[in-house]
Order: sequence, then C-alpha cells, then structure tokens
Amino acid sequence: MSADPDSGLLSPVRAGTPVERVTGDNAVVAAMLAAEAALARAQARLGTVPAEAAAAITAAAAEVARVIDVPALAEAARGTANPVVALVKQLTAAVGADHADSVHRGSTSQDIVDTALMIVARDACELLEADLAATAAALGELAREHRDTVMPGRTLTAHAVPTTFGLKAAGWRQYVLDSAERVRRLALPVSLGGAAGTLAAYVEYGDGSEDYAERLVAAFGEEANLSTTTLPWHANRTPVADLVAALAQTATALGKFAVDVQVLTRTEIGEVSEPTGGGSSAMPHKRNPVLSALIRSAALQVPVLAAGVTQSGLAEDERSAGVWQAEWQLLRECLRLTGGAAHTAVELARGLAVHADRMREDVELTHGLIVSERLSAALAPLLGKARAKDVLGEASKRAVAESRPLREVLGSVPEIADVLDPAKLDGLLDPAQYTGAAARLVDRALDGHAK
Amino acid sequence: MSADPDSGLLSPVRAGTPVERVTGDNAVVAAMLAAEAALARAQARLGTVPAEAAAAITAAAAEVARVIDVPALAEAARGTANPVVALVKQLTAAVGADHADSVHRGSTSQDIVDTALMIVARDACELLEADLAATAAALGELAREHRDTVMPGRTLTAHAVPTTFGLKAAGWRQYVLDSAERVRRLALPVSLGGAAGTLAAYVEYGDGSEDYAERLVAAFGEEANLSTTTLPWHANRTPVADLVAALAQTATALGKFAVDVQVLTRTEIGEVSEPTGGGSSAMPHKRNPVLSALIRSAALQVPVLAAGVTQSGLAEDERSAGVWQAEWQLLRECLRLTGGAAHTAVELARGLAVHADRMREDVELTHGLIVSERLSAALAPLLGKARAKDVLGEASKRAVAESRPLREVLGSVPEIADVLDPAKLDGLLDPAQYTGAAARLVDRALDGHAK
Amino acid sequence: MSADPDSGLLSPVRAGTPVERVTGDNAVVAAMLAAEAALARAQARLGTVPAEAAAAITAAAAEVARVIDVPALAEAARGTANPVVALVKQLTAAVGADHADSVHRGSTSQDIVDTALMIVARDACELLEADLAATAAALGELAREHRDTVMPGRTLTAHAVPTTFGLKAAGWRQYVLDSAERVRRLALPVSLGGAAGTLAAYVEYGDGSEDYAERLVAAFGEEANLSTTTLPWHANRTPVADLVAALAQTATALGKFAVDVQVLTRTEIGEVSEPTGGGSSAMPHKRNPVLSALIRSAALQVPVLAAGVTQSGLAEDERSAGVWQAEWQLLRECLRLTGGAAHTAVELARGLAVHADRMREDVELTHGLIVSERLSAALAPLLGKARAKDVLGEASKRAVAESRPLREVLGSVPEIADVLDPAKLDGLLDPAQYTGAAARLVDRALDGHAK
Amino acid sequence: MSADPDSGLLSPVRAGTPVERVTGDNAVVAAMLAAEAALARAQARLGTVPAEAAAAITAAAAEVARVIDVPALAEAARGTANPVVALVKQLTAAVGADHADSVHRGSTSQDIVDTALMIVARDACELLEADLAATAAALGELAREHRDTVMPGRTLTAHAVPTTFGLKAAGWRQYVLDSAERVRRLALPVSLGGAAGTLAAYVEYGDGSEDYAERLVAAFGEEANLSTTTLPWHANRTPVADLVAALAQTATALGKFAVDVQVLTRTEIGEVSEPTGGGSSAMPHKRNPVLSALIRSAALQVPVLAAGVTQSGLAEDERSAGVWQAEWQLLRECLRLTGGAAHTAVELARGLAVHADRMREDVELTHGLIVSERLSAALAPLLGKARAKDVLGEASKRAVAESRPLREVLGSVPEIADVLDPAKLDGLLDPAQYTGAAARLVDRALDGHAK
Repeated sequence: MSADPDSGLLSPVRAGTPVERVTGDNAVVAAMLAAEAALARAQARLGTVPAEAAAAITAAAAEVARVIDVPALAEAARGTANPVVALVKQLTAAVGADHADSVHRGSTSQDIVDTALMIVARDACELLEADLAATAAALGELAREHRDTVMPGRTLTAHAVPTTFGLKAAGWRQYVLDSAERVRRLALPVSLGGAAGTLAAYVEYGDGSEDYAERLVAAFGEEANLSTTTLPWHANRTPVADLVAALAQTATALGKFAVDVQVLTRTEIGEVSEPTGGGSSAMPHKRNPVLSALIRSAALQVPVLAAGVTQSGLAEDERSAGVWQAEWQLLRECLRLTGGAAHTAVELARGLAVHADRMREDVELTHGLIVSERLSAALAPLLGKARAKDVLGEASKRAVAESRPLREVLGSVPEIADVLDPAKLDGLLDPAQYTGAAARLVDRALDGHAK
Repeated sequence: MSADPDSGLLSPVRAGTPVERVTGDNAVVAAMLAAEAALARAQARLGTVPAEAAAAITAAAAEVARVIDVPALAEAARGTANPVVALVKQLTAAVGADHADSVHRGSTSQDIVDTALMIVARDACELLEADLAATAAALGELAREHRDTVMPGRTLTAHAVPTTFGLKAAGWRQYVLDSAERVRRLALPVSLGGAAGTLAAYVEYGDGSEDYAERLVAAFGEEANLSTTTLPWHANRTPVADLVAALAQTATALGKFAVDVQVLTRTEIGEVSEPTGGGSSAMPHKRNPVLSALIRSAALQVPVLAAGVTQSGLAEDERSAGVWQAEWQLLRECLRLTGGAAHTAVELARGLAVHADRMREDVELTHGLIVSERLSAALAPLLGKARAKDVLGEASKRAVAESRPLREVLGSVPEIADVLDPAKLDGLLDPAQYTGAAARLVDRALDGHAK
Repeated sequence: MSADPDSGLLSPVRAGTPVERVTGDNAVVAAMLAAEAALARAQARLGTVPAEAAAAITAAAAEVARVIDVPALAEAARGTANPVVALVKQLTAAVGADHADSVHRGSTSQDIVDTALMIVARDACELLEADLAATAAALGELAREHRDTVMPGRTLTAHAVPTTFGLKAAGWRQYVLDSAERVRRLALPVSLGGAAGTLAAYVEYGDGSEDYAERLVAAFGEEANLSTTTLPWHANRTPVADLVAALAQTATALGKFAVDVQVLTRTEIGEVSEPTGGGSSAMPHKRNPVLSALIRSAALQVPVLAAGVTQSGLAEDERSAGVWQAEWQLLRECLRLTGGAAHTAVELARGLAVHADRMREDVELTHGLIVSERLSAALAPLLGKARAKDVLGEASKRAVAESRPLREVLGSVPEIADVLDPAKLDGLLDPAQYTGAAARLVDRALDGHAK
Repeated sequence: MSADPDSGLLSPVRAGTPVERVTGDNAVVAAMLAAEAALARAQARLGTVPAEAAAAITAAAAEVARVIDVPALAEAARGTANPVVALVKQLTAAVGADHADSVHRGSTSQDIVDTALMIVARDACELLEADLAATAAALGELAREHRDTVMPGRTLTAHAVPTTFGLKAAGWRQYVLDSAERVRRLALPVSLGGAAGTLAAYVEYGDGSEDYAERLVAAFGEEANLSTTTLPWHANRTPVADLVAALAQTATALGKFAVDVQVLTRTEIGEVSEPTGGGSSAMPHKRNPVLSALIRSAALQVPVLAAGVTQSGLAEDERSAGVWQAEWQLLRECLRLTGGAAHTAVELARGLAVHADRMREDVELTHGLIVSERLSAALAPLLGKARAKDVLGEASKRAVAESRPLREVLGSVPEIADVLDPAKLDGLLDPAQYTGAAARLVDRALDGHAK
C-alpha cells in the first residue's frame, strides 16, 4: 500500500504552491541522487573515477529518481537511520556491474543527505527570493501611490498620531527586503567529510596528491552548484542554523504584513480589503481575509520549528545519533511554510484594495485627539509645558465626555484663544499636516537608501 | 500532477509505522467526512434531519472518502483557509438532491475540522497506548530479570555509586507509565459551536425545545465516539493543549530511554546492545544504535512542536484568522512522531541485549572509588566526619595517581586497619553490597505501587 | 559588590506582584534550607538522627536564610554546577560541631534543589490558584450581568453572527477554570534519591529495616508538605513537565482574555475599556490597555519557556550534566510570568468596563448582514436551498454596494415578500433574536455543569 | 521592601561573570538614561535643544542612574507597560526647571527602551566577542599541539574510523569562529520613530529643514555609538531577530564543544579532563565536568528563548500591545546565558587536559575494526568489491566473537595472504596511518583559509 500523502491538507498556506514541488520526498530523493552523481563527476574531474562511470552514474541517478518506490525507501531508512544505504543499493544496481565500484566512492550517508538538503534549500530559496522580490515590488507600488494617504497611526490598539498608508506599506516592504537580503546572503555548501570528517576514504581512493581532499571538495561544490567550507560541517551546523534563522525572519516579516492587514480589514475599520474574500461555509455575506490568515499561520510556526533545527547543533561526537535526524523534517517544514507564505504574500500585496476615504474618516474618529501630541508641543512654549499639558488634558476629557470635537472645545478656552488664532488652531488640528517625516521616509526607502 | 508525497523519508522514526495510516491526509479527510456523517445522525436522532438523509450522508461520506482527490481538496482549501467548504460541496453532490439540504446542516468549518482532528487523535492515541503498554511490559521484564544486576550509577557523565540495571529499567518503565497515564486521561471532545460559538444555526434548524443545543452536543459526541464539553471550544484550546502536553511528555519519556541506551552502547561501555545494529554505508563492522537514534530524533522535535500548538490558544475573537490554522500540521506531527517513537520503542525494549558481565567489569573500573560514599559514611563515626573525609580523600588520590585498587591503598593505612578488619573492609568495598534500596524499589515499582 | 538585581524591570507583568516574593533567589535559598531541615526532621522521626539535631538544623536553616550572602552563593555554585555544596557548608557551620554530622545526612544536591523548587512551585501555585479563582469569579459576574447583552460575534476578524457578551465572558471564565483545574491537579513531590537514585547513603545511615527507604520518603514528604513518588525522579521529569504544561495552559488562557480585550478596546470598536488606561509619554489623550498588554506579554513567553523545561526530560544517565541545570531558571520564569499574569488578570476582570450600547451599535453595523445565516436557513425551506442562497447573496451585495439596510433591500424583493410577511422579516433580522443557545450556555456554565 | 534579587542562583553559568554587570536592571536603567542624554545631545548638535540643556541632561542622567530606586521603577512600569514614563519624571526633576522642557523632547517610550537594549546588547557583545576570541585562541593551541594525536572518530556513539584530536579541536574552533563572525556582523541601531514611526514630534520640535529627521537619526546614532536604519524599526524587528539568531548560534557552538568534552571525560573514556573537577556533596572521589555542564545548560536554553524573541516580530500596528514587552526579558536572558557560556568556555578551553595516551589506547579498542573501511577500500580492487566485503565482514565477525585482533584473524585467511603481504597488512591496520586529510584540514583551518 502506498504511503498516505501529505498534500498540504493541514497546511493550506503551501498547498499546491511551487515550493512543494522542490521540497517533497520526490525532490529530496532526486537531490540525493544528484549529490551522488555530482560526487562521481567531481571524482572523474580529478581522475579518480573513470569519466564513463561518472556519466553512467549521472544517467542512472536520473533514471532511479523517476522509478524509485519512495515509501519503500522511507521505510528502509528505519534500518539504518537514514535513506542513503538503501538508495545506494538501488543506484548501484541501476548503474550496472561495470561501474558499480564507482558509486558512492569513499562516501558516507551524511555527505549525501546534507548535500541533498542544501540542493533542496537552494531550489526553495530561489523560488522564495523571487516571491519576496515580487511582494516587495507590489508593496513599493502601494507605498508610492499612497505616499500621502493619511490614516491613523495605531499603538497599543488605539489611535496615537496620524501616519500615512505609504509609510505603512514602505515599512512592510522594508521588512521583506531585510529578509530577502538575509536569504540572499546564505551560503549553502556541499557536505564532504567521509565517515568521521577526515575524508579518509575519499583520500584512500584519491590520487595521492597532498591537496587532493580540498580539490575534491571544490570540484564537488562546482558539480553540485553549491558553495564549500574549509572544514566538513557534519558537526558544525552553522549552514543550517543560518538558513532557518533567515527563514524565521522571513516568515515573521511576511506575518507582520498579514496581521496588519487583518487589523485594517476588521469590519469596524475596513481601511483595506483582500483581493478575494474567502467565503464561509455558513455565512453568505462574509469575505474572510484568507490570504493573511494563511500567511499568519506560517509565521506562527516557523520560529518554533527553526528553534528545533538550531538546537540540533548541540550534538555529540563526529556525527550524532538522532540529533541530526531531528533536523530534516523541521528544516523542510521551514522551507515549505516560508515559501508558501511568500507565494501567498505576492497575491495579497498585488491585490490589496486600499480604501483611502475610510482611512480619512478614521483619522477624524477621535475628533482631534489624534493630534493632541502636536498641540502639546505647540502650546508648551506658549503656556509653559505643565500648564499646556493641564489645559489640553482638561479639554480632551471634555471633548470625550461630551462627544464634541476637540477643536470646538479648545476654541472656547480663552487661555488658548489668547495665544492661537483660529486659523493656526485649524492647522494644528489637521491630521494631514501632522505626519512628520512620513513622506520623506517613504521617498528615501523607495530610493534605496534603506540599509 | 499529484502532490509530492510525504512518505516519512525525512522522518524515519514513523516511516511505515501504523500511526501514519491514521494520521495521513487520507485519514484526515475520512475523519472530516465521518464528522459530517455523525452530525447528520445526531440530528436524525433528535428528529431534525430525516433518518434516511442521515443514512444517505453516512453512505456518501464513506464513498467520497474513497474517491476524493485529496491534493485538489488541499489546494481548494487555500480559497477559504480550510478544506471544509470544498469538501461539503463534494459530499452534497454525492448525497444527491433529495437529501442535500441535510448535509452540514447548521454547521461551520471549525466544528468539522476540530472534530475530525479529535477523531484522528483518538485513533492515534489508541495505537500509542498499545505501544506504550508493550514497551512498559518489555521494560518490566528487563527490570525483573536484572533486579540484582549491579552496574555503575552515572552522574554528570562519571561513575557515582553502584546501581542495578533492574532499577534503571524500572525507571524507564515508570517514565513510560507516567506518560501512558497522561495519554489515557485525555478527554477528546467533539467540537460544536456553529458560526460563532452560539450554536445559533443548529438551534434554528432544531426542534424549538429549550435544551436542544445540549442534547445535540451529547448526541454528536455519542455518534462520533468522542467526549463533550459544556461550552464550545473554538476559542478555548484546552483539549488540544492537553493533548500535545501528553505527547511531549511521552516523546520525552521514550527519548530518555533512548539516550540512556546510547550511552550504554558506546564502544567503550558496551553494557547493552540494540537488537539489530543498523549497518553503515561505509563501515562493514559498525552496528549503529539506530532504534534509539530514531526515538531520540522524535523526542527532540515534539516539545518544540507542542509549544507551537499551545501558543495557538492565544487567539483573538470567536474564531481567529490564522492562529487556528497554525495548529493543524504541528498537532499531526506531534501525533506521528510520538506514535512512531512508541512503535520503535517496543522493538528496542523487546530486543535489548543486556551484558551483565560488562556491567560488572565497569563497576570495578574505578578500583573501589565507586563506593567511596559508603566508606565515608562508615568511617565517619569511627574517625570523625572531617578526619574520615581527609583520610579517604588522600587514599583516593593515591589510588588514582598510582593506579592501584583503593582496597590495597586503604589496607596500608594504619588508622583504618585499626578500626576496620579486612573482611569488613572487603564488604564495604563490594559494589554489589552498596545498591541501597534498589531491589526494593524495583519490587515496589513492578508491584504497581507506583503513583 | 552585590549582584545586579532583577527587579522585574524587563518583566513588568510580575514586577512587584506577590509571586516575586516566593520565587526570587532569597525564596529559593530559603526553600533549599527548608528542604535540609525537613530531611533532618524526617530522619529524626525514624530515629536515625537525634531529635535535638533536627531541631538545631531547623533553627540554623532559618537563621542562615536570613543572613546568607546570596550573590556569593550563586557564584560559588559555579564550582559544583549547583549551590548545595556551598550552602551545606554554611548550614553545617551554623549548626555547630555537635550536630554537624546530621546535616545533609546521606543526601545529594539534586534531592535538595528539586525539593526546594517544588516548595517554591507550591507556594507560587497557591497564589496562582487564588488569583485564578478571583479572576473566574469576576468573569462570572460579567457573564451573569451581560447574559443577554448582544454584540457581534467575530471570526477571521469580521462580523459573523451575533453573540452575547455574557457568553464571551463565560468562555473566558471557562478557559481560566480549565487551567485552574490543571494547576490544582498537580502533584508536587519531594525528591529523594541519593547520589544515583538508589537511596544508598540514606539506607546506610538508616536503621537497617527493610522498608526504611520508603518510610523515609514518606516522612520527608510530610515534613516538607509535598507529595511523594514510588521511584526517585532525578531522571524522570514528569513532575516538572506536568507543572510547566499547566502553567503554559494557564498563561495562554489568561492571554486569550487579554487579546480579546485588546480587540474590543480598539478605538473603532470601544466595546470595553480597561479599568485605568495607562498613559503615554507623548500623547495626553491616550488610554492604553496596559493590563491586557502585560498579560499578553506573559502568554507569549510561557509556552516557549515551558518547551525548554519539557525538553530537559531528555537527559542521559542517573543524573545529567547540564540538562538538569537548564531547567531551573526557565521553570522559575514560568512560575513568575504566569503568577504575574494571573495577578494582573484579577485587576482587569474586576475593573473591566462594558459598553453595552456600543455593542448594540456595532451589531447593527453591517445593516443586517450579521443575520444572513439565519435568513439563509429560514428561506431555504421556502425557496429551496439553492434559490434562497442566490436571492440572499444578490440582496447582500446590493445592500453593501448601495449602503442600504439589508431589511430595506429584502423588502423590495417580491419573491421574498411572497413568503415572509414584514413582521416575520423584522424578527428574522433582529440580531437580538439570533443568539442561539448563548443564554442557555451561560446559565449552564455558571451553574457548574462545565466539565 | 526591596525586590528579591536574581543573582544567578538558578543560572550558575553566568553567576558572577562580567556579562551580568552590563545586562542587569541597573545597567538597563543606565542605558535608558544614556539614551535620553544622547538624544538631547543629538538635538543640541542640530540646534534644536540648547547645548547647556543637553549637558544638564547628560549630567542628570548619570546622577539618576546612581540613585534611582530600581524596584520602585519596575513596579511603576506596570502602570504604563514600560518604565520610561516614570523614568522621565525622575530625570526631569533631576534636570531642574530650566531645562525640563528639553528632556525626552519629541520622544516616545519605545525609542528609549529599544535604544537602551541595543546599548546593553553592544556592551554584552563586546564581552562576548572577547571571550569567543579567547576560546578560539585556546582551541587553536590545542589543535596545533595535537595536530597528529590519533583518537577514535565516533559516530552514532560507536567508533567509526580514526581521527585526530587536532581536527576535533579545530572543528570546535571553527564553530566558535563562525559564531563570532555572526556576532561581529551585527548592526545594533538606535531606535527613533516617535509616537507612531513618523518622527512627527521630533520634526515638530525641529528646525523646519527638510532633512531634519534623517540628520537627527544620524546624530543620535553617533551620540549613542550605535548604527542607524533608514526607517524606524518599532515594527520591524530585524535588528533583534539578527541578534538572537547570532546568540543562539553562538550558544550552540559553545554547547557542541561542551557535549564533546562530556563524552570524552566519561569514566570509561577519560581522553580529556576538565581543568578543575567540581566536587560532589556526597562522593569525595568525583571530579565532575562542571564547566561543560554549565555551558551545556546555556546551550539548551538560548534557542528556545530566541524563538520567543523572533516571534515578537509578529506584531500588529505601528507599535503592538504586549508583543514588544515579551521581547525584553527573553532578549536579556539570551545575552546573559550566551555571555556566561562564552566566559566559561574560555576557562574550559584553556584548562582542558588532553590524555593522548588514552586516545591511543582507545583507538585500538576494537582490535582493528576501526580501520575496516580502509581494508574494504584496499581489498576491493584485489578481490572485487563484493567478495572483499564478504571476506572482511566474516573476519570482523570472527574477531568480535573470539575477541581476537582483526590483524590476527585476517592473517589466517589465505585469500588475503595471497594478495597482501604482512607488512602491507600491518600498515593498513595502523589507525595512525588512516586519518585522511585530518592534518591538512587542521593546517588550513588554522592558517585562516576557513570561510
């Protein structure tokens, strides 16, 4: 009986998205076979495996990837705590007797699995980078378009001072760009250490030259299209820790965008709408913010999964017993969830509807209190800081208690009328005139001054 | 193209084990359909859905479970942030026009998904409990058999005082039993709240009686073979938090057994062996402790995954946007990893080879220092505590420095010879006579005095 | 120089709350000394330590707790990876030469630290239970008072169907009660194992009777006012895992209350207010929901901290090297944060202002769409399910597009006028008449039918 | 009553180490005051605050840091969910009436707390970098000295193939260097956004020039000796995520060193010893590996704490309600634990005793099986790969079963004698001749070829 699939039913954020194709079990098997083939070609380059053997292994690897029974391989992995032993058997059989000796020559399971997971990570990160770039581009458009769209700045759930939707979008974009930079910076290396990190069997099968080991590592890196490290990293999990740190940061950045969208789509706020509201099984009228819900679901998961991966660096000996194995699925989930979230974010950023009129209405909701910080600053030099604070506090309380605009209340305070003429007061009370450096920040961020 | 399977290739601890069958996407779909059918039957019991409609829905549910395209369903779930909307469409079509109105009557997606996941959890926990019982039984056998097998007690990696393998096995067993008790105690309830936890649509379709809602919940619980709660739990994730807490505890308990086995199988220690050593791809002689490696890999993952699930209780509103979705896959992974670990633990516990002779050799490895605590206690009343400590410390240092048995060194100290005759000294230095309450503890633990 | 204090500056949720007093370093030192004293009294009860020695140790323990230099003790703990060795030295000195031999008799550091942390946990849990009970009582009042206060039920951030504030408050209460039950159920045991879990030295200093070890454990439990376990739990961390699971559940339950309050206090929603709004350093008008912010900050932390504690069960040997130590501070933080959150929740629950008028306004905000589920149910038998859905969908779209009440739009649809008279339609459109089983659920929950 | 201190009693890895001084509550208060002073000086530079006011604020800040009642401040923080409001009051009072208006001018609490935590992080990271450099230097010495010291390479707890202690030490060093590089790369920026990230009040109090905001940020960065960002980072937690990722990586790298030391110090292995064995409260002979236990305790905690911090990026609005607060203590713990671990690692690396003779003995423990990989490689071309494997497997089994050296068994197999003369066989069986590229790798790593 075939294994029960994991089609993403319980992980809709990535169901059917491109990252699934490059991270599924089939892709992992293909990557392990690609690693074996790259190793053989690297050895052929150095003359320690016949060129025709390397070619035969490369061809057989592709063939085995097509026909292999993956669930059976997974089950066989239980016997050796990794799938490589069983995989090498099948690859060797497919290669045939002539070149059998050249398969997995001098190698060890961890070299193959680690390299394969880096291949998978590279492919997933390529998709991820493209989706992050597309998300950032769409957010950039929003920032440009709404550079001067005033809306309430919200802190601790309450209106604080005005901001602009342009600055908000520029902030989301910057967070995404910061993440993309961290993904781009990643060095995903081949793993080549042999049984205990000395490369002894590779050297044994080598050409006897002093620098054979390092030349082999370099050639393997080139054939696998990955970077290299000076020392084997079986027991130095920096590459994996860097990877999941970047993914956790990315999922969080996308999640920040999502939770803000959720606030702004609330029935009472309605300042933005998702492109297509997800329907409800019960309520015909509901347009649910499903894209942001999906993204948020990923953002909640990745950091804890990443913690599990990071902890796997705490492993004894040249290669551990079980700690390494704990890394695999968690790492894949990090790739899959972040990739799915980024793919979903493109859709959300491109389709987000912005309701500038609603933002304008909301910024007036507190009848002027949203600019009380500014009034405070303006009155301080005129009345003294303490007195200004008292007068303003008193007026604010009255405005709230009597549901009157703050402008009206202030206008009736003689102490204020003495120092501020009505026009000046109107200006001070206009939220659109109290957005500080917002426009300037948007321009600078979009111009690429961002760090 | 069909979705890429997750066959457990990156999670060998559960690859091919029974828990996969009851937790995979097919099982989840079947459970959602079973929840729909149970709901219809519950409503039929109360007379608010025709009996023949409930029968038709039950039959159609089974049929849909057989033929449904799960990857397509998973992808459709992206449009509504859950798979129920699309599933109900298919179920309704399969039921046919006559009874279509009775499908998913008054219901909401979360009622179906939550109930389905509890069905999945129940099935997985049944397998888990059986495997925990089998593991405990095998460990009980080991404890009984080796009740008096002396071995070094190890603390902070060093020999401390003697213990027995029986007590060690009894300790593993107790940890497993404590976990099993926590699994057994779990109340896995149906979820029934309707769109916002008021059961309004269920009541709308009800019979108008005052207690209809609670009778419906009770009937649903019986039909689904799950427990019930007084209030809907859409936004009270106690059942899920309890579940993952029990699973994290269980995975940890099994992991404790595994890491101890790993220490005892070390080449230098060799006090136990795994039933079948996993081979190595490179080293023909190696017998790797693969079962314990697999179990440990699960134990490292489950607590962090469980933390993610527990955090999902922190969700706003009657039903959250994305927090709930973050729970699903993490919960399934907890079930799958713990179930796989327990299945593997049965194999390990039943097949563990114990090398009592090696234990006996190791207990002598420190040439008597392992009983220095006892000598300290025995000499204190004879020489005074401080003097006893000094004499013993001095002798210990000499024994280590000169690689001589402590017995020999002590025998040459006149101060000791004055107070202890050689036979008494021999007795005090026999590790087998310094195992404290070990045997008694084993007996009591096996007799079921354990809390 | 004394150590820099941790006064809770970075953890305001617990700063100055009662739980700090029972969990701080001074309290831990006092608990370790209390454990030493309880052990001596237990041994005295069994006749293996002189009664006057036990009394002297008990007195000296209290005295040392008063005068000890805690920072110096903490630093001394670095030399032995725990503070007991240095503490016992000071206790022994304080006891004086006559009874020095009876101090820490047969004991080991882990017995003292584990027992002390259980004493600390017991004291913290007592405070916690009282605060949870007070919170639940206040929430019960709110539920009773607002049993029929209609408000929007919100799902995925949007209005779904009506609910009542009474049901919401009853839901918060139930979550808190579920947590309180898990705290109450905890068994906090003494730890007594000796150097390697065999109790060998205790037995050595015992009376030679066969059941000495178990009688000592029982007596120790009684003297320390804690429960007991059949086997020592040095290497079976079930008591600690249970404890942090209950704390994580509790912090989450309190956090759920807090995040809901945050939604409802939003400027645009304003359905509840915190008792005293926290001021802002910049904005005189702002009333920040600070209590809920503090509670939420704890809820975000405890589950990850708890995961770290749970993982500490994965420890090798009779006692591990470093895994045990990783538990201590994490455990204390869990106690402190949850205790602080509960204390804060009492204040929030008691002082929460409920704005029923605002709720009533909000429930009308969608001009009738909030009851579309009900209309759907009512029209289905009259028009056929499919047709009903179409008619209603069409009307809803028009109502939204034209900003007209749904009632008005529906009234102008002849197909509907044919089957529903105006009065019936008014009733169907009244949110207050579509709260399902809400009132009944509140009554049952408050009457204690809750599981 | 003063608050109960946290002197590190439950966290001995950092008790009394230098990092405590720069991360304690006193240091945090001093950093907040330093941030206020730097802000005033930055404004003075730009001419928007009088120079004498900035000087007065700088002086008053230092004075307040000396005299402030920190526990009272912590408690006051409960009223506003942060300590800045109360702190500014005290600072303003200390500054006096003349310059009161220049205190905290245009500022908001988060600007001060975020900047302060970056100051604390910078100071802690300086100590950390120095300790990492010292650890790496000491490990480099060990690698150089033991470049050719042969020892067993261990994988999955069993002997695999030989390695050298030099390569092992070089691997530890590389892991530490990789971590140090990540710490060095960190950009720790000032935070300057004002009430909602627009810098509006700063601009209001500015000089009206278009680029005032960015000049203020630059000046603040210089005065606080921190970097800057283009956009405010109130709601973009990249700086904090980067920081804890580097700390989690570092703690893990140090922990890897620690767990390896723990394996090698086991009673049965004894290949290394800690500089000073920690004593035991019960067993006079025990030398516990306490330094590595302390380091490991930190490594177990930091990744889960870091996950909590990373998750805090998922925060709604311009500034969140409670999510930000969740970051503070977790971040401090990450700094404190990692700093303490690094300080402890210096001691461990410098004092580690290496027992080369014991390593040599251990490498012979399997009587030749440790080089079976090499024999396999050597025999394959002579006998054919399959036949070689069979012959060797058979001989290995016999060697183990009969407890005879593999050399002896192999010598008696005619098939082998035919193809390998005794001298050749001796060479193949010498572990010291099968260390692959170990020496070369050490040289290259120490020569700085490491990435």
